[in-house]
Amino acid sequence: MSFFLKPLRVHLSADKKFHESLHNVLGFYPTNINLYKLAFRHSSAAQEIQKGIKDSNERLEFLGDSVIGTIVADYLFKKFPFKDEGFLTKLRSKMVSRNMHNQLALKLGLKTFIESNNNRFGSVPNSIYGDAYEALIGAIYLDKGFDFVQDYLLKRIINTHIDMDEIETKEIDFKSKFIEWVQKEKKEFSFETIENGVSSVDKQYLLHLIVETEIIGKAQHFSKKRAEQMVAEQACNVFGI
Amino acid sequence: MSFFLKPLRVHLSADKKFHESLHNVLGFYPTNINLYKLAFRHSSAAQEIQKGIKDSNERLEFLGDSVIGTIVADYLFKKFPFKDEGFLTKLRSKMVSRNMHNQLALKLGLKTFIESNNNRFGSVPNSIYGDAYEALIGAIYLDKGFDFVQDYLLKRIINTHIDMDEIETKEIDFKSKFIEWVQKEKKEFSFETIENGVSSVDKQYLLHLIVETEIIGKAQHFSKKRAEQMVAEQACNVFGI
Repeated sequence: MSFFLKPLRVHLSADKKFHESLHNVLGFYPTNINLYKLAFRHSSAAQEIQKGIKDSNERLEFLGDSVIGTIVADYLFKKFPFKDEGFLTKLRSKMVSRNMHNQLALKLGLKTFIESNNNRFGSVPNSIYGDAYEALIGAIYLDKGFDFVQDYLLKRIINTHIDMDEIETKEIDFKSKFIEWVQKEKKEFSFETIENGVSSVDKQYLLHLIVETEIIGKAQHFSKKRAEQMVAEQACNVFGI
Repeated sequence: MSFFLKPLRVHLSADKKFHESLHNVLGFYPTNINLYKLAFRHSSAAQEIQKGIKDSNERLEFLGDSVIGTIVADYLFKKFPFKDEGFLTKLRSKMVSRNMHNQLALKLGLKTFIESNNNRFGSVPNSIYGDAYEALIGAIYLDKGFDFVQDYLLKRIINTHIDMDEIETKEIDFKSKFIEWVQKEKKEFSFETIENGVSSVDKQYLLHLIVETEIIGKAQHFSKKRAEQMVAEQACNVFGI
């Protein structure tokens, strides 16, 4: 009986076990299994297939990252009909952060599928999981089309694994917000540490944020990161970001 | 006869003229005409529909920008099967630049549709055209779905109006490339102008590019922008970007 429940190719495939394990994780049968194999292959385990190009998951990651961004943009656009694009942009950057993708990869159980030779130091960097997650979404998109991957991402990932209340209330990263805006506007900018402004006694950082040729923000703090957030927040207020 | 060639709603619509003009530009009949009206409404001509939110094209622009990014990613992925993701990223950023979107809006003839009160100084900023173009793509996506807008963008815009040979050979913007990478990697960075390093005689800028706490690039040039490109190129080489 079960023969009729699965596509014939699964029974004929030499990769029956991989196919079945993937079905357990994804909830559907892949059509082109090679795309999924590629999605899990970190560059450390890849072969050069032509001069300068390896059969790693990096190209799929490029594609998947973009597909996720669009599906999340659409989701937020419809979920928050009365919020402006600044709010949507901020929420999306939290939902598609590197950290979030690493976590999602682990929650989905992708770890066992990943091919890597990157563990010479006893552990692999976390980003390898997020990269594989993005590449997997790229593979599903190519294998099954946009509508399918959108449905999968909404039902099996966003609605199941992402806590939107937590995301909405998490502290705002003004620096990211500012940089996203300033790049979109194609303006010159720089975070400049003022050497003479740092007192040798209390060792606080004095930071200027310069946009085009104007000093937009000034802040002083023991933590350089905190000072950057402070000047970026000033800039967000100045430019109405 | 022509009655049967157009959807009934076009004949019944009070916006028959807008519908017809849009059809001439797009080559298809919109289903939900209100989405397209919204796409052409710059915030300067928008009304507040609820506290803090206007009926401007900014939300559609957010969505459309992302949809274009995905369609272009897919296009490049398939067009260049033996190029790495660095190449694809670089080409995409040229294809979806603000400047490119402004040009495309004018080529498509969107200018006449735009609603704006932004011309108190006798001219509107060019970005208003690019914004409307992105919002239009967002509107088509919502109105007709991903497959339709993908087909439209490939046939009517990319293959018709974008010169891929020119895009491939245009000079590389190392600063954008570096910033894109450094943000993806979530590393701290700053372009720092070294005050004491600038000779008062020749007025060259001495620039350091700092990533985390390390000086990655040093350059000196009469143009600050050129010096930034130079340090960014050094960083691209160091990190293999």
